Amino acid sequence: MTLLDDGASPAATHKHVGTRPIRHDGMDKVIGKARYGADEVLPEMLEGAFLRSPHAHARILSIDTARAAEMPGVKAIVTGSDFPRLPLDHPEETLSQNLMARDKVFYDGHPIAAVAATSSKLARKAVDAIVVEYEVLPHVLTVDEAMAEGAPILHEHLRTKNPAIQDDAPTNVHNRTFFEKGNIDAGFANAQVDIERTFTTKVVHQGYIEPHAAVADTGQDGRSTIWCSSQGHFKVRAMTASLLGWEPSRIKVIPAEIGGGFGGKTNIYLEPIAVLLSQKSGRPVRLVMSRDEVFRSTGPTPGAKVVIRIGASSDGKITAAKADLVFESGAFPGPWAMIACLTCWSAYDIDNAQVEGFDVVVNKPRAIPYRAPGSPQAAFGVESVMDEIARELAIDPLELRLRNAATKGTRTLHGVELPIVGAVDTLEAVRSTEHYSLPLGPNQGRGVAIGYWGNMGAASSATVNLNEDGTVIVITGSPDIGGSRASMALMAAEEFGIDVYQIQPIVGDTESVGFTDVTEGSRATFATGMAVVEASRKVVAVLCQRAAQMWNVDAATVSWLDGKAHHLSSDDRTPLSLQEITRQAHSTGGPIGETASVNAAGAGPAYATHVCDVEVDPETGQIAILRYTTAQDAGTAIHPSYVEGQMQGGVVQGIGWALNEEYIHNGQGILENPSFLDYRIPVASDLPMIETIIIEVPNPNHPYGVRGVGEVGIVPPLAAIANAVRDATGKRLYDLPMSPPRVLEAITGSE
Amino acid sequence: MTLLDDGASPAATHKHVGTRPIRHDGMDKVIGKARYGADEVLPEMLEGAFLRSPHAHARILSIDTARAAEMPGVKAIVTGSDFPRLPLDHPEETLSQNLMARDKVFYDGHPIAAVAATSSKLARKAVDAIVVEYEVLPHVLTVDEAMAEGAPILHEHLRTKNPAIQDDAPTNVHNRTFFEKGNIDAGFANAQVDIERTFTTKVVHQGYIEPHAAVADTGQDGRSTIWCSSQGHFKVRAMTASLLGWEPSRIKVIPAEIGGGFGGKTNIYLEPIAVLLSQKSGRPVRLVMSRDEVFRSTGPTPGAKVVIRIGASSDGKITAAKADLVFESGAFPGPWAMIACLTCWSAYDIDNAQVEGFDVVVNKPRAIPYRAPGSPQAAFGVESVMDEIARELAIDPLELRLRNAATKGTRTLHGVELPIVGAVDTLEAVRSTEHYSLPLGPNQGRGVAIGYWGNMGAASSATVNLNEDGTVIVITGSPDIGGSRASMALMAAEEFGIDVYQIQPIVGDTESVGFTDVTEGSRATFATGMAVVEASRKVVAVLCQRAAQMWNVDAATVSWLDGKAHHLSSDDRTPLSLQEITRQAHSTGGPIGETASVNAAGAGPAYATHVCDVEVDPETGQIAILRYTTAQDAGTAIHPSYVEGQMQGGVVQGIGWALNEEYIHNGQGILENPSFLDYRIPVASDLPMIETIIIEVPNPNHPYGVRGVGEVGIVPPLAAIANAVRDATGKRLYDLPMSPPRVLEAITGSE
Repeated sequence: MTLLDDGASPAATHKHVGTRPIRHDGMDKVIGKARYGADEVLPEMLEGAFLRSPHAHARILSIDTARAAEMPGVKAIVTGSDFPRLPLDHPEETLSQNLMARDKVFYDGHPIAAVAATSSKLARKAVDAIVVEYEVLPHVLTVDEAMAEGAPILHEHLRTKNPAIQDDAPTNVHNRTFFEKGNIDAGFANAQVDIERTFTTKVVHQGYIEPHAAVADTGQDGRSTIWCSSQGHFKVRAMTASLLGWEPSRIKVIPAEIGGGFGGKTNIYLEPIAVLLSQKSGRPVRLVMSRDEVFRSTGPTPGAKVVIRIGASSDGKITAAKADLVFESGAFPGPWAMIACLTCWSAYDIDNAQVEGFDVVVNKPRAIPYRAPGSPQAAFGVESVMDEIARELAIDPLELRLRNAATKGTRTLHGVELPIVGAVDTLEAVRSTEHYSLPLGPNQGRGVAIGYWGNMGAASSATVNLNEDGTVIVITGSPDIGGSRASMALMAAEEFGIDVYQIQPIVGDTESVGFTDVTEGSRATFATGMAVVEASRKVVAVLCQRAAQMWNVDAATVSWLDGKAHHLSSDDRTPLSLQEITRQAHSTGGPIGETASVNAAGAGPAYATHVCDVEVDPETGQIAILRYTTAQDAGTAIHPSYVEGQMQGGVVQGIGWALNEEYIHNGQGILENPSFLDYRIPVASDLPMIETIIIEVPNPNHPYGVRGVGEVGIVPPLAAIANAVRDATGKRLYDLPMSPPRVLEAITGSE
Repeated sequence: MTLLDDGASPAATHKHVGTRPIRHDGMDKVIGKARYGADEVLPEMLEGAFLRSPHAHARILSIDTARAAEMPGVKAIVTGSDFPRLPLDHPEETLSQNLMARDKVFYDGHPIAAVAATSSKLARKAVDAIVVEYEVLPHVLTVDEAMAEGAPILHEHLRTKNPAIQDDAPTNVHNRTFFEKGNIDAGFANAQVDIERTFTTKVVHQGYIEPHAAVADTGQDGRSTIWCSSQGHFKVRAMTASLLGWEPSRIKVIPAEIGGGFGGKTNIYLEPIAVLLSQKSGRPVRLVMSRDEVFRSTGPTPGAKVVIRIGASSDGKITAAKADLVFESGAFPGPWAMIACLTCWSAYDIDNAQVEGFDVVVNKPRAIPYRAPGSPQAAFGVESVMDEIARELAIDPLELRLRNAATKGTRTLHGVELPIVGAVDTLEAVRSTEHYSLPLGPNQGRGVAIGYWGNMGAASSATVNLNEDGTVIVITGSPDIGGSRASMALMAAEEFGIDVYQIQPIVGDTESVGFTDVTEGSRATFATGMAVVEASRKVVAVLCQRAAQMWNVDAATVSWLDGKAHHLSSDDRTPLSLQEITRQAHSTGGPIGETASVNAAGAGPAYATHVCDVEVDPETGQIAILRYTTAQDAGTAIHPSYVEGQMQGGVVQGIGWALNEEYIHNGQGILENPSFLDYRIPVASDLPMIETIIIEVPNPNHPYGVRGVGEVGIVPPLAAIANAVRDATGKRLYDLPMSPPRVLEAITGSE
């Protein structure tokens, strides 16, 4: 890693991959020229405003927009009835119900109507003039309330998805997941130490800086162009089409720059509404959310109730492990507990283990992905109990984890055999840091935790075109969220053997590059990178053919090295540079460009080990993060600075989740803190410099060994901090966030 | 051709090529939604204005912009000194001098400075405040003046390009072209009839409706984005880069829709200036020309003096032909006489012929291409003399041309052997029309003429991507000037065997598709079409592979027919549609897309034969076009309606050139008619419906036999109308335009 700090390459064989050039899009972003979702301005453009539910759960008896429609400047109004009802088994059915309420509202902030007018002010005035009759219904906010006997039912049609469950009664439990391995009863019987604890985490928001924004311009030809910031404009096109009942090809989505997503911009809230408002008004329409709307109606990530039981032998080998995971999926079904079941025990090699998960609907906003969705809530419980086991057995907590760490060949509960992974490497890297060995002062404590995330592949496309001046255009369909332009350019620079600034990485719209899946699951550098490398290699092959033509030799005798075509057998031919070949391209067969598409398999699982020092103020319960170090397996760090940025970002969001962030609902189920003033995310002054250690255990399934680095960093912090607080105070907190009042109660109250 | 009129396919084998769907971009253009060069609006955008020379020829002693720079709203000013001086042998050197005058101004309207301000009004005010000291120089306006002894010299460094000419004295004659074949002295000796005449044509303008416009946004990163309408945005990028001394890759050009070009938008006048003004001001800058500026400073096509001598035997076989062609290239050297030398005699198979051409600079705007540049001026002379020969020998003028028509194997003067061509077919088609046999009334006359144009190939690229809904995106780099979106979509529809509206033809910017040459020489449907067909065939091959995968059979056993993959050997497999395959694309290897680039050779020469009836008012000299029929060899008509539109457009522009259009300069060399009021192009009420006969002699070098149809239509009208006037009045006009005063003089004056 010191190797990386001076900007050198991690692998001696790489000239460009592993270096730290300034990102191509950096200048525009620094000087404010980069255009985000709300920056698009079209002639005659209208502004929009939303009417949202003031109730957590209510039946809509009537919506009267007549007066609003007559108000000055109002050009169009849409309600749920303007959208087709999708069949219950349609994959986007809940997205459609969430877009705009129809018969019922399911949470405070659920959209009911939208108005487009000549100004935002007039649009908001018209919204106030819309009259809605409600029949308020009892609501549920927690999984316990939702699963209780006789609990109010959100969706009458909902049944628990699980063959084992035959009960045909309506329920709020829409999914049960169960995996097991070995025999946990026998395992617990052989345990010298056996600890079970219950943990809860609250709903938190992805907290990106840029609110959702979309501009749509729908023509009389029935086609619409959408400008918006998202994590995947092809998915925006597909989802918008589904919700409108259109063919995707009627829609063109032009990606704006994106001011943060973290999973929160994989779903849509505005686009189909903007398209319809534009169609009705015959003018372009812009919809921009306020922060209040972002909190009440978008994201968040589910709260959870987690029961973890671990048994271990005296030498610290886990003999049995059991997890019961119950997740709030918000107003509509979601797969969160199911995903948590896949990640819960994957950091360890355990013979006897079991996990059961329930996904439960409650009257809160529809939960969507947030950085390694599901994994942090489960890891909070698992890694906290591991810490108690270590204390009980007086074994160093890293040593305990090393004795149980997953390695190549470990079988997960869901029956997958792990490929080569870096779990042990990250544990050892942290153990050997100066940080881990430093003494602590009064009221100070140290905690560690490990986290796992599986990462993803999926579909990506790339087109590579050569300019006549010898520069290379690399077009991909992945929005640049965390520096992907730079990563794509570095891999292309490596393939072509030219300077990274001779590469122009372009994010293409849905009509200028092939289909590319949404940027999630840490897949962009892995999958889109594969497409870039494949397209680049096709182009290099053409360059060699062209050089052979110029030399009038057999193409098989030409090879590509350091940006030049070399003739193998004869020394009398001076190598031809990329520029020399492109200058001649017209006379050797025309311009040079190639495309490639992949459906990438073989994403490499990622592990991260964190160590955290805290100091707890005994009088206020305030927790200060003194020092924080993270070691994470990146596979290969294409651009180490942006890998470190992802590692640090994950930690910081984990710190917020652990210490302060939470949705606070009142008795009526109304969100009481929908602003960054009352919903407290960490600010720079709350944080030390997060120290990063990049571990590189290359992923054999990627040409450069990429694993994906975006998500796993948020998994360990919740437990690492809780373990440090336990170390500092002797008291363990089982419920997040560990805000000063809770901490004070814990350290003053009796255990 | 009747076959085509009902929208049926010209070739039984084609389902889509040869039909007449409404163009994909039609709706946007009809309802005014299509965005042209001047429609781009950016936040903080400045407006520009130009200072232009009030003199035809003058030395610039000084330019003082100090006061202008201080004026309200003014943000940036540029003059010639802001641009690098290109070496005299640089291909864009004259373009650079034409962009902005440096030491000298060479014509009325030559740009001297440009201002960017917060409004057009303020920019124009600032322009008025710029002080320029001139030393006015004597000027030359005609080739005779320019070639006279002791004529004022425009460019001291200019020497005549020709090995035969050793004279090292400065001259206005920059180029001499000479071709000969056989022995013309012997040829003329054997002639029974021998006629020589001298003809002149005036400078005329392309007369497109949309004035030039460009918006540039130059960032602090030294890169600039340009929105403009042009005939080729890759060439705009290349020319702008040359004139700025930049690498092309620093510039991105986004094509706007284009409101007509006809050759006049193959060159640039605004873009590098907008880029610099934007760089100096740090804000986007828009430059939009007035019609006055378009006439004074852009285009036009050269005036010419043409001496034609033809000898023929009594049976009408041409025994010898000689042409002397002198072209005004405006203020800077151009290849116009040289091109005219290549086309002059190419309609005929002549044993003894000679052509000599001189390109001469005069103090008029720099001439640039206009529809078949050079050819109409020469054909005016050749086809007029052919008419006199026919009268002299009392041979039907079409019969005379048929006896001498070029055919496969004919050797041109410049030594090219013609491939299969449609000259004879177009002559016979006209001869067999009802039009040609109808009787004429008093003061009425009929004239015929044939025209030739060689057409072009050059470099084009295309990318074809498949949407998940089974529609096809076809991206090309050719602006849609005459319906190319429809043509590209039709060829792709034919390749895929799906409905043309399932194809989305996209014009990509310079960063979303491979390099594509400018649209000129009637090359777009030919060359860009080849790239589209090649890319489509690559995609079809992939579709067959994917189908084979889905069927788990050998790809060699799968073929593509009517939009479906068919399994050859077994009937038990239902054919898979494109949509069924794309829906599965993710699981069969990812999205599907391919690119192709060509440097197209083998463009097919085009011929057109026209017949025209006129009536001449003996009292006013006013000429009315009574009826006009054109037969033209399209090779294959991809979209017959747009082929007919090109044929009609060429005729109409030829009629304007023949009857009314001319640049009128006063004694000081100032253009006196720079507006559509005083420069009269034909309006609908001047014209009959132009009758079209599409001849299809397929070009063997194109997958669908395309030749290119944009240009040849303007070649015959000048002579066809002059011949009709001769037929109606007994008087021949040798000088264009045949405006009422000239006609009156001819028919009242003595021959």
